Amino acid sequence: MMINKIVLAYSGGLDTSVAIKWLQEKYDAEIITYTADLGQQGLNKKELKEKALATGASQVIIEDLKSEFINEYVFPALQVGAVYEGKYPMATALARPLIAKKMVAAAEAVGADAVAHGCTGKGNDQVRFETAFAALNPELEVIAPLRDWGFTTRDTEIEYAKKHDIPVKATSSSPYSIDENIWGISVECGQLEDPWLEPPSDAYQWTNDIENTPDKAIYLTLGFKSGVPVTLNGQTLKPIELVEKLNKIGANYGVGRIDMVENRLVGIKSREIYEAPAASILMQAHQDLSALVLQRETMHFKETLMPKYSETVYYGLWFSELRQAMQSFFNSFKDKINGEVKIKLYKGQAKVVGRKSNNSLYDNGLATYDKSDSFDHDAAAGFIKLWSLPLKTAGKAKNSTGEDNNIEDENKINKRQII
Amino acid sequence: MMINKIVLAYSGGLDTSVAIKWLQEKYDAEIITYTADLGQQGLNKKELKEKALATGASQVIIEDLKSEFINEYVFPALQVGAVYEGKYPMATALARPLIAKKMVAAAEAVGADAVAHGCTGKGNDQVRFETAFAALNPELEVIAPLRDWGFTTRDTEIEYAKKHDIPVKATSSSPYSIDENIWGISVECGQLEDPWLEPPSDAYQWTNDIENTPDKAIYLTLGFKSGVPVTLNGQTLKPIELVEKLNKIGANYGVGRIDMVENRLVGIKSREIYEAPAASILMQAHQDLSALVLQRETMHFKETLMPKYSETVYYGLWFSELRQAMQSFFNSFKDKINGEVKIKLYKGQAKVVGRKSNNSLYDNGLATYDKSDSFDHDAAAGFIKLWSLPLKTAGKAKNSTGEDNNIEDENKINKRQII
Amino acid sequence: MMINKIVLAYSGGLDTSVAIKWLQEKYDAEIITYTADLGQQGLNKKELKEKALATGASQVIIEDLKSEFINEYVFPALQVGAVYEGKYPMATALARPLIAKKMVAAAEAVGADAVAHGCTGKGNDQVRFETAFAALNPELEVIAPLRDWGFTTRDTEIEYAKKHDIPVKATSSSPYSIDENIWGISVECGQLEDPWLEPPSDAYQWTNDIENTPDKAIYLTLGFKSGVPVTLNGQTLKPIELVEKLNKIGANYGVGRIDMVENRLVGIKSREIYEAPAASILMQAHQDLSALVLQRETMHFKETLMPKYSETVYYGLWFSELRQAMQSFFNSFKDKINGEVKIKLYKGQAKVVGRKSNNSLYDNGLATYDKSDSFDHDAAAGFIKLWSLPLKTAGKAKNSTGEDNNIEDENKINKRQII
Amino acid sequence: MMINKIVLAYSGGLDTSVAIKWLQEKYDAEIITYTADLGQQGLNKKELKEKALATGASQVIIEDLKSEFINEYVFPALQVGAVYEGKYPMATALARPLIAKKMVAAAEAVGADAVAHGCTGKGNDQVRFETAFAALNPELEVIAPLRDWGFTTRDTEIEYAKKHDIPVKATSSSPYSIDENIWGISVECGQLEDPWLEPPSDAYQWTNDIENTPDKAIYLTLGFKSGVPVTLNGQTLKPIELVEKLNKIGANYGVGRIDMVENRLVGIKSREIYEAPAASILMQAHQDLSALVLQRETMHFKETLMPKYSETVYYGLWFSELRQAMQSFFNSFKDKINGEVKIKLYKGQAKVVGRKSNNSLYDNGLATYDKSDSFDHDAAAGFIKLWSLPLKTAGKAKNSTGEDNNIEDENKINKRQII
Repeated sequence: MMINKIVLAYSGGLDTSVAIKWLQEKYDAEIITYTADLGQQGLNKKELKEKALATGASQVIIEDLKSEFINEYVFPALQVGAVYEGKYPMATALARPLIAKKMVAAAEAVGADAVAHGCTGKGNDQVRFETAFAALNPELEVIAPLRDWGFTTRDTEIEYAKKHDIPVKATSSSPYSIDENIWGISVECGQLEDPWLEPPSDAYQWTNDIENTPDKAIYLTLGFKSGVPVTLNGQTLKPIELVEKLNKIGANYGVGRIDMVENRLVGIKSREIYEAPAASILMQAHQDLSALVLQRETMHFKETLMPKYSETVYYGLWFSELRQAMQSFFNSFKDKINGEVKIKLYKGQAKVVGRKSNNSLYDNGLATYDKSDSFDHDAAAGFIKLWSLPLKTAGKAKNSTGEDNNIEDENKINKRQII
Repeated sequence: MMINKIVLAYSGGLDTSVAIKWLQEKYDAEIITYTADLGQQGLNKKELKEKALATGASQVIIEDLKSEFINEYVFPALQVGAVYEGKYPMATALARPLIAKKMVAAAEAVGADAVAHGCTGKGNDQVRFETAFAALNPELEVIAPLRDWGFTTRDTEIEYAKKHDIPVKATSSSPYSIDENIWGISVECGQLEDPWLEPPSDAYQWTNDIENTPDKAIYLTLGFKSGVPVTLNGQTLKPIELVEKLNKIGANYGVGRIDMVENRLVGIKSREIYEAPAASILMQAHQDLSALVLQRETMHFKETLMPKYSETVYYGLWFSELRQAMQSFFNSFKDKINGEVKIKLYKGQAKVVGRKSNNSLYDNGLATYDKSDSFDHDAAAGFIKLWSLPLKTAGKAKNSTGEDNNIEDENKINKRQII
Repeated sequence: MMINKIVLAYSGGLDTSVAIKWLQEKYDAEIITYTADLGQQGLNKKELKEKALATGASQVIIEDLKSEFINEYVFPALQVGAVYEGKYPMATALARPLIAKKMVAAAEAVGADAVAHGCTGKGNDQVRFETAFAALNPELEVIAPLRDWGFTTRDTEIEYAKKHDIPVKATSSSPYSIDENIWGISVECGQLEDPWLEPPSDAYQWTNDIENTPDKAIYLTLGFKSGVPVTLNGQTLKPIELVEKLNKIGANYGVGRIDMVENRLVGIKSREIYEAPAASILMQAHQDLSALVLQRETMHFKETLMPKYSETVYYGLWFSELRQAMQSFFNSFKDKINGEVKIKLYKGQAKVVGRKSNNSLYDNGLATYDKSDSFDHDAAAGFIKLWSLPLKTAGKAKNSTGEDNNIEDENKINKRQII
Repeated sequence: MMINKIVLAYSGGLDTSVAIKWLQEKYDAEIITYTADLGQQGLNKKELKEKALATGASQVIIEDLKSEFINEYVFPALQVGAVYEGKYPMATALARPLIAKKMVAAAEAVGADAVAHGCTGKGNDQVRFETAFAALNPELEVIAPLRDWGFTTRDTEIEYAKKHDIPVKATSSSPYSIDENIWGISVECGQLEDPWLEPPSDAYQWTNDIENTPDKAIYLTLGFKSGVPVTLNGQTLKPIELVEKLNKIGANYGVGRIDMVENRLVGIKSREIYEAPAASILMQAHQDLSALVLQRETMHFKETLMPKYSETVYYGLWFSELRQAMQSFFNSFKDKINGEVKIKLYKGQAKVVGRKSNNSLYDNGLATYDKSDSFDHDAAAGFIKLWSLPLKTAGKAKNSTGEDNNIEDENKINKRQII
């Protein structure tokens, strides 16, 4: 297949800069760079554009996707309380399908016949990009230069860059490799690869060490409407503002650090460090409010669906039927998730201390132990009779067949223990 | 049915003291009191015995069940990481089946024809007692005096007590109703019934307010063997000692407070306050070590089983086939959960900061990004090709039938956003 | 509470006829009978009305609910492939919430303060009625005369009927108790209560014994649109007509007999006999077509949801949040379920022998083993490398720790078996 | 890596015969062929050995694995009722891990450094072999000649065979490609690749067309002990005999044909034809007996586990922790599955018509509607009160917030329908 135009996911770093040149040489094709603004700090659009053009790009696309990211990717995941392997709120995993979708749109708009990304062969992101490309435009050719090119060491890559007048930033003082957006940041470096070692303080990019957090707690009140946070301390905020504000406050209080050993889709375990202050606060608030307004069976079953949803997103299947079907499950009751949640931030923790809602199913008359108790205590006896009937029948069956009670230790009272 | 002897679960409080008399009068039966020592503080066995006999009990049984409780109930739940509705480690729910089992054994040993408990008609514990009785000895009559007797107010109960010379403790200064054992404590009171109000500091019985915790972090190293904690900072401890020590240290650091709105089995939502320092520390350590030594598919699937296991235990079905079958699931791999976990306790938080194991599946050669990388990057391309094939086929099918991509918003690039 | 008007679910049989009188006497209330036409055979609306009025009803409501039943209850269950405990398509369980909903509407329309049903205390239907009443109008009083009245034997009931001039039908020659609607029929009788005995031929009300079915197979072609059957052998039919026709054809071919031991919600096992020819045919056709058009992950996950959905419906929780949420899951992809299914009916079996769809994800180029094969065989090696990597890492870990392979029997080749 | 000895999975067909030569040439290695006897018909061990030696094998291993296959692979799957995508009993999927395990053992015994299989690049079996090799001996090199060699057409393969004096069987009159063992047979051919076409009669290798089955039904009584079938019509049989007998009888009665569109692990849909008479009979019998002896919660939950178990096996993860953990779940209650099942075979169907067990939880006193009824009808009212309490609370909450009942259509009675 002849490839004339390639849309390349571009960060401005060495790898994707070299990729511009390498793709040009290998395919003799026009390179259009694509960069998504998802809230990563230090993104200088003007500089980025100039650099891309200087390196050989024929066209530069930079889009602000923050709002779409929050509304169409982050908040849907918030409905689910989606965390991978019990911990990771998936900032990166949620961003990839959106970037891929926009790259496909860009490729279609400019008439490109291929898309390219700068992921290596052992991460999850290559999968997330390529599944999304496959789903959204199966005709597009997909190129993964970092997986395919021949640079076996960093040095040969730098040599290639110099040869092609690609600016090679002076070795950064930071040893950390970072992926960052408004929903969280991930940090990697050689030192963190030993899961026994505690991450050094400077590995964390956003959050204060607890030792350096304020000595006085702060209380936040978050207002939700249809499952989505809309107010902070009574003030209505746009999603971006609200999330950014929570990130800032949370980071100041040391909230949202995650240190875990994680299973990648490509079959290996890796040690990962994340920071996600806003995610941590919002997830707890959403879950706690849900507990007040949703029916018991819903609460229990959504808890068993969450891991599957998170796995599906983490595995790059955002655009699958199954992810959309699970989303519909959660969407069906999100309109009930209205109300306010009071959260105390202090010394690395965000804890819900109060919740209220017009949709509350907490019925004080039923719950109270005081005189206004309206619960029908007599009904309990009948309830228990039928609830325990299967076990009673099983108990009788065991007796009648002479079987024991299947209980591990002996069932006889220990005489010595009787006073 | 004639009832001659009744084994009564006895705490020494007003309710179960009155129950002795009331059962005697109603059934003209001999009352044997049963009390389990599960680590509740302030249990004075000698006083308790005297009081029971003075109130009319013909025999008094007090058993130390701490060891059996930890080994046969708490640690099995620890294998599962069992928390009800995402939070509650179920100290009370785990204790009830054991007490019921021992009461059945006592009833069989003394030839009683009935067992009785002091639960009211709207809690979960009545169910847990009665399902266990039904499973273990379906022939025993079950009596629930507090559900059945006619005392409509506390005053008529006290009047009855005075009439029968049952000592009525002076009104305690504490408004809190407490259930306590070595795995945790639950606290109830009228004030906590408003889920919007933050629990007052004195509601917490075990744990320090974070404001009062030490200003220096403490690091613990927990050693696990076959899924069970066996060492603390290198020192081998018996389960009881280890859990008691973690409770003490954890409480000092403010670890393990839980504030939640919970769905009871009897159909109502209630607001609950729990403290469980050791449970909180051990659950995290166990989960984190598991992430290092268990296979990905195991980790993911056990996450979806946990809520069902917890629901089953919370609902009083400890002695069901299903609880035992799920336990077998978790038992099948617990022998691999060996190793050490390093935990930092500080200002209300217990966080795992390191983990290692001889059974570790973390392979540094595969995970590293440095020169020793042994991962086969080329395999990734083939992997992704087949992994994304279903989405690609679906993508093509949509195109061929003229269907859209089922994606919410428009897929076209926004020209204005292109620089 | 004063009860002035009661809406009573009325079948015209002895029980509900006696109930009219008994409710009148006990509550001194006006009785409005409610009867739903769900396709039960032999329903004579004119006679039923006259009988109800003659027995004392002040008003008679008979509604044809067939269309609403199929569209809003049966077809949603069809999307799920909902069968309880792997077998029962839940004709009765699906009908109860609809009847209850219409009774609530009737009660609201006539200003009744109570609703009443004729279920006994040990079936599932009492639960289904009362959960629906509770969900839809929690203010309505609910009365269950057959559970509450004092008739301990059939004879006292008949005596009461005669005393009040309620016509007692001559003892029917049929010993069977039947519940019937357009989605299926259930049959009960004393003889069937022994689960070891084969049901006698005359227990089956709709379907031919296989011995009496036609000797030549018949082929049907069912057309689906958005998950719903719309054509039979090319002819467009209304849902009612289509289901009735399939019931007739299927019954002639002996299709749809079910004989099972089932777990009731009230805690007992019962032996049940059902017939459901149309349900049996449509379930298979829908499932088979789904296999052609839905993605693998969807197919696999919906298989794990089905039992929960069925349990939820069977347990009377149709109007719960969870049932609606699961429905939303299935609704999200039902628009893809279009196409045709070819079914062979013969000697008690309906078997799908062909399926096609414009939405088919079956790609002949990928599936074929002939020369047009377009599958990338090379990708497989890479795929397998990463797919098996976790097991390989585990295999190595075992070796390095000297652990065995956890495999039951010895792994060494048996020399004698080598030729 | 130098490869000196290769153990090759060998069937005696053209592909694996050519593979002997091709491996010898490519690796200059000694080839040991491995053939498992799993009950495939027409296996002539003597001829096979001679052919392998004639083609160049240095050593020939043929093992009878039937007994191990049934006891360690088939019967464990029977406990689960394992069928992939609701239909396929996985005869082939269950056999591959056993063959791989024995090949590993053979390789270790003869000191081979590689194993080889004759699977192509688009089936499931390549995955199943290689995951098992990876799990059991990660050091062994794995070679897949049919995926790697350069024969692009059948003709070049035949040419290569002729050049090397490998006997090429005259083109068989049968166009079908078959995999067969004691648990079932799978049939593939070009004609079956169109999922709309009904399989021709001669595609089925084992089972009679229903048109040719006996005109009189036959009744079988199967006795189970600890979940495993042990008697047929009262006669104790060894597992192999019993399964072979059921295959023969079932095939005569046309039982066990399966026609489905299936999702392969490698990402494509394929149309598959299977025959599995014994599996079909035993699965139903086991499930039906389980319904009699297992508790409700067990029955419901095992239904949701089955698809995951089957997926795990089908995906080649037999030796994974998760498969073993799920097996432990099912093993925990299999000792209760004792008793007898009566099955009617007739015209392509096997239907259970009776079941009994000493472990039965069917309690006639509870289930009967006659005078011996021992069910506590009064308890039902209390049970329903608490069971419906969450829906009632939700119903009230809706009313108090003015929300509607979330029900699709209007809730008002249609006046015209009232007679």
